[in-house]
Amino acid sequence: MKTFNINSDRLWNSLMEMAKIGGTEKGGCRRLALTDLDKQGRELYIKWAEEAGCTVKVDQVGNIFCTRPGTDNSLPPVGTGSHLDTQPSGGKFDGVFGVLSGLEVVRSLNDHGIKTKHPIEISVWTNEEGSRFAPAMMGSGVVSGRFSLQEILDTTDVDGVRLGDELERIGFAGSEPAGNRAYHAFFETHIEQGPYLEAENKQIGVVTGGQGQRWFNATVTGRESHAGTTPMHLRNDALLATTKLIQKIEAIAKAHPPGCGTVGFVQVGPNSRNTIPGEVSISIDMRHPNDDELTQMDSELKAYVEQLTAEDGVEIQLDPFWYYEPIPFDENCISAVRNATQALGYSHMDIIAGAGHDACYVSDFAPTSMIFTPCLNGISHNEIESTTPEECEAGCSVLLNAMLTMAEVAEAPETVKEEAVI
Amino acid sequence: MKTFNINSDRLWNSLMEMAKIGGTEKGGCRRLALTDLDKQGRELYIKWAEEAGCTVKVDQVGNIFCTRPGTDNSLPPVGTGSHLDTQPSGGKFDGVFGVLSGLEVVRSLNDHGIKTKHPIEISVWTNEEGSRFAPAMMGSGVVSGRFSLQEILDTTDVDGVRLGDELERIGFAGSEPAGNRAYHAFFETHIEQGPYLEAENKQIGVVTGGQGQRWFNATVTGRESHAGTTPMHLRNDALLATTKLIQKIEAIAKAHPPGCGTVGFVQVGPNSRNTIPGEVSISIDMRHPNDDELTQMDSELKAYVEQLTAEDGVEIQLDPFWYYEPIPFDENCISAVRNATQALGYSHMDIIAGAGHDACYVSDFAPTSMIFTPCLNGISHNEIESTTPEECEAGCSVLLNAMLTMAEVAEAPETVKEEAVI
Repeated sequence: MKTFNINSDRLWNSLMEMAKIGGTEKGGCRRLALTDLDKQGRELYIKWAEEAGCTVKVDQVGNIFCTRPGTDNSLPPVGTGSHLDTQPSGGKFDGVFGVLSGLEVVRSLNDHGIKTKHPIEISVWTNEEGSRFAPAMMGSGVVSGRFSLQEILDTTDVDGVRLGDELERIGFAGSEPAGNRAYHAFFETHIEQGPYLEAENKQIGVVTGGQGQRWFNATVTGRESHAGTTPMHLRNDALLATTKLIQKIEAIAKAHPPGCGTVGFVQVGPNSRNTIPGEVSISIDMRHPNDDELTQMDSELKAYVEQLTAEDGVEIQLDPFWYYEPIPFDENCISAVRNATQALGYSHMDIIAGAGHDACYVSDFAPTSMIFTPCLNGISHNEIESTTPEECEAGCSVLLNAMLTMAEVAEAPETVKEEAVI
Repeated sequence: MKTFNINSDRLWNSLMEMAKIGGTEKGGCRRLALTDLDKQGRELYIKWAEEAGCTVKVDQVGNIFCTRPGTDNSLPPVGTGSHLDTQPSGGKFDGVFGVLSGLEVVRSLNDHGIKTKHPIEISVWTNEEGSRFAPAMMGSGVVSGRFSLQEILDTTDVDGVRLGDELERIGFAGSEPAGNRAYHAFFETHIEQGPYLEAENKQIGVVTGGQGQRWFNATVTGRESHAGTTPMHLRNDALLATTKLIQKIEAIAKAHPPGCGTVGFVQVGPNSRNTIPGEVSISIDMRHPNDDELTQMDSELKAYVEQLTAEDGVEIQLDPFWYYEPIPFDENCISAVRNATQALGYSHMDIIAGAGHDACYVSDFAPTSMIFTPCLNGISHNEIESTTPEECEAGCSVLLNAMLTMAEVAEAPETVKEEAVI
């Protein structure tokens, strides 16, 4: 397989330039969806994309599509993209790397003088993080049909500001219909946000799918009473029962590798130092790449809830409010990523996306895969999120060559071809 | 032992009348310290005490002292009292019963035409609950010297309102020095606020002391990371480690009966559904009537914290910020209560005060005991707090006769004496 290179310095410089918009003292980035800073980031990106010869379209939910024409523009484009919004205390790479590596693909194709048969399209999906407006992955979710446009436009932030109004205000309420997109293939590069690649010392994660998720809210009710006057044997402590439930969730996940089980949210009532808790609410997050295993985890949780209710004399309300089935990515797209990685000589491993990504929703309507690159200590959603120019170069090079596999090289100067032969 | 009776209906009617001030729809009472409602309650009580022939003095921290003269007023009074302020969602009896049973003692002495050698004094202690202004038991704490007057006057509520200013505003910034009080003996009647008397089917708890308390704040620090991308074996979950600590606190308390161990407060950071908790803060409340046992519980907790730190790889900051030694009540006062109870024919048991009470601070400077009466299901600090006229009558009758033992009957009409002989 013939491979083509990208400009690593240019990619890194663009990442650092974009990171200034909302840059924090600790080296992170705070660029919340549809704020003035998001507007600045979007405008800088569009300027760069236009300079690289792309046409720009914005849809009704603010997604930006920058297109480099192919030799046959009747064909659906080969897409890539991610998001420019960040967590409140986010880093410089989560999402942004996926957008700017797409831009670097276009710039490199220009450098090389390569024309592709299919158009190449870079997408910026609105509000992936879901921090300011919940839920997450709104832009890709509307296009995939998971959310209706109207419900998303009517979403409000904690100050009651409406998403649709913010889109208008920052000039990104576009006219393109939000939906009905077609891609010949779609790829998203992203930092892993986990520790697997680093632990295995691999440069590239070939992402074969997204794991399934089951989300619950649980409320454990005991009897609130005085910490000083209620003897131990007469207590009905909702918190003590909850500790057993939390430990069981860990045990269930560990019994189903590589499943995950997490209690991230706890609310104790009345949460007073000298009152035995009468009610405790928790969140439960269970994930597994295999749906049968995830179903088994769900059954074990429900069985334990019944057991604990009987044993501890508490009431437990278990509300399974969200189920997100495991997403298998497209075999051809996965192969394109794996082949490009091998041709470029990068160490690699297959990996499952543990978090949600825009690519997961895109896979509803297009053949899709993702390319993961390592991040320091697996840390993300944090100002200290860190990666290196070399790691970014590897991910972007794989993206370029995987996209070329799917978009097909129509014309390329002979010199470039020779240079790039391995 | 000769005994004298009280007027049960009058006591109950006074309790019900006082409960109207701040009365809630659910039958409870909300009369927070130094509010307009507290002022109304204090004024009603003073009117009743004056009608019963008492002289009234108010000290610099707003404590009210109503005195019925003895035949030798050079002797220190025999005191009783409690508080009129309530919890935000409090009941009709916590505190109020202790004040109005004191008033009923004076009224009954008047009915019987009894003169005592020592004066009789009823105290209303300012802000026992500590709900609006923390800490609790302020009025008795200033008189005992546990708190300085100035620090208490400068305390502010959540709205920044200063306690001293509120005292002035409601007209209860008195001129009597807050401190230097002497009692020949002091008794406080109070609902038990726990389930022991009810469980043992006893009418009276002879309170032999207050249990010791050790309060801690603990913070467990692990590593915050993504719930979807961090495999179970690479996690450092602060909440999971905390569940073990919470369970150990229960185990320690159960190994030292009748000790108590409670975690009432939990704060999880960042408390987000899909983030593994990086930091969890909890309160720890350990109590035991025996100081050696309490010290042993403290040692076991500290040893376990070291063990857990080593086993789970978390950091644990344990801050033992408050120690309140067990308080043994005065043997003569305890005997006076027990003898009165037996003479009146009530079923009874010795009991330790699990909660803090004004009497605990009064015992710093005066021979003291308490009289407990049952409350329904042991529930207090709650609008459904409940007791019966018969239970109140029993407690108040014991109070009258215990006080008479210590104050000594100087003059009583022959008819009363005869009536009351058992």
